[in-house]
Amino acid sequence: MPLNVLFAATPERWATYEPALQRAFKGAGLDVRLALDIPAGEVDYVVYAPNSELQDFTPYTRTKAVLNLWAGVEGIVGNETLTQPLARMVDPGMTRSMTEWVTGHVLRHHLGMDQHILHQDGDWTPVVPPLAEERRVCVLGLGELGTSVAQTLKSLRFDVSGWSRSPKDVPGIETFNGDTGLDDALRSAEILVLLLPDTPATQNTLDARRLALMPQGAFIINPGRGPLIDDDALLDALDSGQIVHATLDVFRVEPLPVEHPFWAHPQVTVTPHIAAETRAKTASEVIAENIRRGEAGEPFLYLVDRTLGY
Amino acid sequence: MPLNVLFAATPERWATYEPALQRAFKGAGLDVRLALDIPAGEVDYVVYAPNSELQDFTPYTRTKAVLNLWAGVEGIVGNETLTQPLARMVDPGMTRSMTEWVTGHVLRHHLGMDQHILHQDGDWTPVVPPLAEERRVCVLGLGELGTSVAQTLKSLRFDVSGWSRSPKDVPGIETFNGDTGLDDALRSAEILVLLLPDTPATQNTLDARRLALMPQGAFIINPGRGPLIDDDALLDALDSGQIVHATLDVFRVEPLPVEHPFWAHPQVTVTPHIAAETRAKTASEVIAENIRRGEAGEPFLYLVDRTLGY
Repeated sequence: MPLNVLFAATPERWATYEPALQRAFKGAGLDVRLALDIPAGEVDYVVYAPNSELQDFTPYTRTKAVLNLWAGVEGIVGNETLTQPLARMVDPGMTRSMTEWVTGHVLRHHLGMDQHILHQDGDWTPVVPPLAEERRVCVLGLGELGTSVAQTLKSLRFDVSGWSRSPKDVPGIETFNGDTGLDDALRSAEILVLLLPDTPATQNTLDARRLALMPQGAFIINPGRGPLIDDDALLDALDSGQIVHATLDVFRVEPLPVEHPFWAHPQVTVTPHIAAETRAKTASEVIAENIRRGEAGEPFLYLVDRTLGY
Repeated sequence: MPLNVLFAATPERWATYEPALQRAFKGAGLDVRLALDIPAGEVDYVVYAPNSELQDFTPYTRTKAVLNLWAGVEGIVGNETLTQPLARMVDPGMTRSMTEWVTGHVLRHHLGMDQHILHQDGDWTPVVPPLAEERRVCVLGLGELGTSVAQTLKSLRFDVSGWSRSPKDVPGIETFNGDTGLDDALRSAEILVLLLPDTPATQNTLDARRLALMPQGAFIINPGRGPLIDDDALLDALDSGQIVHATLDVFRVEPLPVEHPFWAHPQVTVTPHIAAETRAKTASEVIAENIRRGEAGEPFLYLVDRTLGY
């Protein structure tokens, strides 16, 4: 009997994911019927995106796990009908994509590239930036993504620090934790990268008080989640020169409305949530591995802790 | 008796280099009289920049070596009065600076950053770039700088190739050499980095024929030397779409004249020769080590081969 796997994401994803998932299931030796429509009571696993129409998990009585296609689970973790095990996506392709995007924008700000990209007016004024080892970059959040970013920046010789809620050790990186540790980490953060999950505890992590702790002229890069930043406080800090530039990939409302002041602000670069896209091939392999584990009675990878929210 | 070391660079460099050199000489245990003005017949070593007023080395009969502050020696290597040993600068600070600059601009083009930096018009169109491993970057020149750049790009998982005049092996990188090898290397170069020295043999390395070999829509990054590129051929290749963008840090004439078409071309980014500045601290340490070697009868580091021109 094949396993019944429901694909519950927006239908336009089907064309990309259907062949990738089929290949991954085959590679994992799984006999699967993958479909967009299966009676709820017959579904063994759900491949899920939080923006899917499926929001009531009550009738999915046989379902052994809900396997999220996204890294972020804030759109589903509070759903009380979801009592089945829920796994986050930790996609190696997504981790690489995030690491490349952050590394690129850290180097962009470190090197002062915008000056040249935006002003090709014949002005020949060589300004030599400091070396990476003289530049403190701080990564908030030392999960899968934050750790990869911190280690890569370290390999480029940046002076890297990291903060996480609970104590964490990353070789070669000065780590901070807890509320006091967050203030300390911000005090030296010349370039700040936000890679925290979106939970009630992380909302407005960057508020007016904490923005004021940062070194004057600091840069902010947010590929994490929109609610991590108090938008109005950030706009004030940009206008006062406390923060010199913010590169933002995520927002409280997406797409970012055209009338939002971030679009027009000369010290803000808006990018359309592109830092880390799930890659069909690598993500499908993670999902197949989790189904294999479920069938073999092994623990699922990347299970969400409902009390922490991620 | 102290050694007489003449500082023959433009005088505005003195304030930066005098303390750095004194510290480095002390660290190397050398007894040195460092000055801007020493009778030619009494000079033991010359710390040199090719744009110095000193161009006739004939009276420097006691001088044991000329120690260049710059990596490039094309401004001095043809000087027939210079018969003393001539050393290039290989400054670890400069190598790091070059590596950071090239890595930043490779990531900038790889990620398509300019689209967002230049167009903050409310357009939310997510375009996800390929992963680094799907992007071929080719480095021309595998000396100190080219090898460092190639290895760093490889550590970021780019698909890196390299070309050098004579065969060279760099772990993890596909290497090419010789004239046929250059054509082959260019055929797959989606992003091309020029790090060749300026010699008669390297002038116009990128001419119309070779530009046409590259994949359509390729990027060019030149932090090497201006004459490596045939400017008119590059402008044609940009206009035809064969090359989508060129980021140029070096030029045949510097500062690049305001009327040069590179300034106004929308597909060209001009930067004012900032990719790799000699750093006073690390460069002074290299110079002190070379003087220590000279006094101990050991071979000098980074001696220029006059027949090759670098």
